[in-house]
Amino acid sequence: MSFPPPTTLDTSNRSRILNLGAGPSSLPTSVLLQSAQDLLDYKGTGIGLCELSHRSGTFKQILDSAESDLRSLLSIPEDYAVLFTQGGGTEQFSATALNLLAYDAARHGRAPGTLDYAVTGSWSSKAIKEGERMGGRVKAVTDSKKRDGKFGRIAPIEEWELSPASECAMLYYCDNETVDGVEFPSPGLPIHQLPDDYRKNVPIVADCSSNILSRPIDVAAHSLIFFGAQKNVGPPGVTILIARKSLLARHPDESIPFGGPRIPTTLVYKNLADNSSLYNTPPMFSIHVSGLVFRHLIEQGGVKGAEQRSSEKAQLVYSTIDESKGFYEGTTSATSRSRMNVTFRIKGGDDGLEGKFVEFCKERGIEQVKGHRSVGGIRASLYNAISVDDAKRLVEAMREFCGQHSG
Amino acid sequence: MSFPPPTTLDTSNRSRILNLGAGPSSLPTSVLLQSAQDLLDYKGTGIGLCELSHRSGTFKQILDSAESDLRSLLSIPEDYAVLFTQGGGTEQFSATALNLLAYDAARHGRAPGTLDYAVTGSWSSKAIKEGERMGGRVKAVTDSKKRDGKFGRIAPIEEWELSPASECAMLYYCDNETVDGVEFPSPGLPIHQLPDDYRKNVPIVADCSSNILSRPIDVAAHSLIFFGAQKNVGPPGVTILIARKSLLARHPDESIPFGGPRIPTTLVYKNLADNSSLYNTPPMFSIHVSGLVFRHLIEQGGVKGAEQRSSEKAQLVYSTIDESKGFYEGTTSATSRSRMNVTFRIKGGDDGLEGKFVEFCKERGIEQVKGHRSVGGIRASLYNAISVDDAKRLVEAMREFCGQHSG
Repeated sequence: MSFPPPTTLDTSNRSRILNLGAGPSSLPTSVLLQSAQDLLDYKGTGIGLCELSHRSGTFKQILDSAESDLRSLLSIPEDYAVLFTQGGGTEQFSATALNLLAYDAARHGRAPGTLDYAVTGSWSSKAIKEGERMGGRVKAVTDSKKRDGKFGRIAPIEEWELSPASECAMLYYCDNETVDGVEFPSPGLPIHQLPDDYRKNVPIVADCSSNILSRPIDVAAHSLIFFGAQKNVGPPGVTILIARKSLLARHPDESIPFGGPRIPTTLVYKNLADNSSLYNTPPMFSIHVSGLVFRHLIEQGGVKGAEQRSSEKAQLVYSTIDESKGFYEGTTSATSRSRMNVTFRIKGGDDGLEGKFVEFCKERGIEQVKGHRSVGGIRASLYNAISVDDAKRLVEAMREFCGQHSG
Repeated sequence: MSFPPPTTLDTSNRSRILNLGAGPSSLPTSVLLQSAQDLLDYKGTGIGLCELSHRSGTFKQILDSAESDLRSLLSIPEDYAVLFTQGGGTEQFSATALNLLAYDAARHGRAPGTLDYAVTGSWSSKAIKEGERMGGRVKAVTDSKKRDGKFGRIAPIEEWELSPASECAMLYYCDNETVDGVEFPSPGLPIHQLPDDYRKNVPIVADCSSNILSRPIDVAAHSLIFFGAQKNVGPPGVTILIARKSLLARHPDESIPFGGPRIPTTLVYKNLADNSSLYNTPPMFSIHVSGLVFRHLIEQGGVKGAEQRSSEKAQLVYSTIDESKGFYEGTTSATSRSRMNVTFRIKGGDDGLEGKFVEFCKERGIEQVKGHRSVGGIRASLYNAISVDDAKRLVEAMREFCGQHSG
């Protein structure tokens, strides 16, 4: 620790750096400044945010206002609960499978049905593996890698091999795949294209960890939407669930009927809901900062504003790729390009040149553009805290680098 | 959000308030000031603490230094791993049972043995219930409430009814019970008093969430020590495990052999260890602040210093109780009094007078002394961030109130 500790915050280096990391990622400076003050003294109480009782009225207001702002941003219907928990997306791989298996068995009075997964990238691959580990009968209704040898194109729904609706416990998909730069094209998974009986009977579960709040989502068409905070929302450490209340109520005894395992208590959605996210001590700091980000986004034109900026930013970078005459090459099919994570190779995957590009960016203050270790190449993440001007700064560097190294 | 957000931190109200909450609880002001700066710009990188990649060298240094300071504070032997995870103590109620059942079955090549629990308060009561929910055969080796009708006295080990060592998967105890103000007397659970074969063969698991770092603990006598951060360590959102490495290595396939359930992936200790606490995105802020608290404690004389201050603070308050001629009455037997949470009643449990005392304290800036809703009365928590002078401030208020209302 440096003594004496600072009481004046130095933010001078922030504007120098453009952090395009895939998550944890940039947060708005104004939100961080407010959080810093709240850490020391929350609203003149003399008690810092993380020193409040989580059962106090003061913290309840923090929870309530975060929930209410999120409801307004995403037009969440009344019959959906908003829940704050821990463990990230990875813990939800287990929790979604366990809770939906229990729900399905209780609802139909039989052993749990099949878990359908759309495997469109690295994260949904992990989800289906964990669904199977949890004892679920799983089915990949589509698997881009099996089909194409790599993740890069999402097959249209008419090509998906769905389980029979009456035997299916959920349809799970990941709306945006950060590692592979793959996203369902706007406005999102075309749920209306699913067969009638399937759409009406099968709970749809979405992992929106990396693109929530970047475009509207039809909450009412889902049974569950979850997201870790550390991309578009806030600091790591909080996971947010938007869950249809009927799904929670159906949960009879916290375990999977017909011989399935018990669900660890912190993973039981009903426990979280019955206790208004205070079943156990919540990650107070991450929740509060998320709430401030919601407020900040409302002031910036809400989800509509974010969607517009996201399209513009993605458009800027992808058109630079497309106009580079093959110097830059997107790794994703044109119909499945992510607005959040732009992934590309340089000169057909020239490792040396890609390393040079990462360094070139670093010299210009542009950080964390190296692709995920499992796929290589370049990845620039354009989450909500990245501005259109920031994207222009990246594009300028790309053009300059291309000018120096193409031909 | 208030605009423009502050760049100068206002801490003026902090000295006015003495926060004796049972957790989340007070944190050192110097640690919070440093955290606030780090949120905006971590060590001049231009990137805030929660915006760093968790796989970056910068964050690895944060993890490594938190671990190394904790190792030094608690003299943790080399053959123990230090792991950072999420979900709090409540999630560990499930995880301890599941992992220890798996370890036991794999180690002995038979169905998992019995889980022994010392039920000495509200938290260990929850732990044994969850152990049973997870499918464990459980045994309360002692249960203060069953014996005395309330939690208040820990029975000596010679009265405990232990399972046969060869059939026992773990002995679980909670070192300090925050709700009930009950703590194992220093130096802690007298493990050497356990029968030889039991001590040598049964893994001992301790929940030290509310008294870790307030006195030395014999790590080598335990297989696992865990604690949520939000009392003596840091902000809520991180749980720290100290685990014997052989326990982690023994874990064959992440599931409980002989027909037990699979363990959700984020709860498998081996996964956390194999990935150096980066199996999934960690709660970076809570980890960093915990690390700063470790550093702060080292500068304050380490665990020895904390132990000395803890004794002095507890002594001050308990002697005020004992000298009040029955006006104040401790709820805990003299041999099981907690140094962390001093619980007492006023005039034999006069609700009205207790309410007045809470108000009386509040007027003097002393906050959160109301007892836990399940037991009532008064509770003053004297965690590491509370100074001896703070305890004197409480004692003064107690004396003054007694002077006004006794007789």
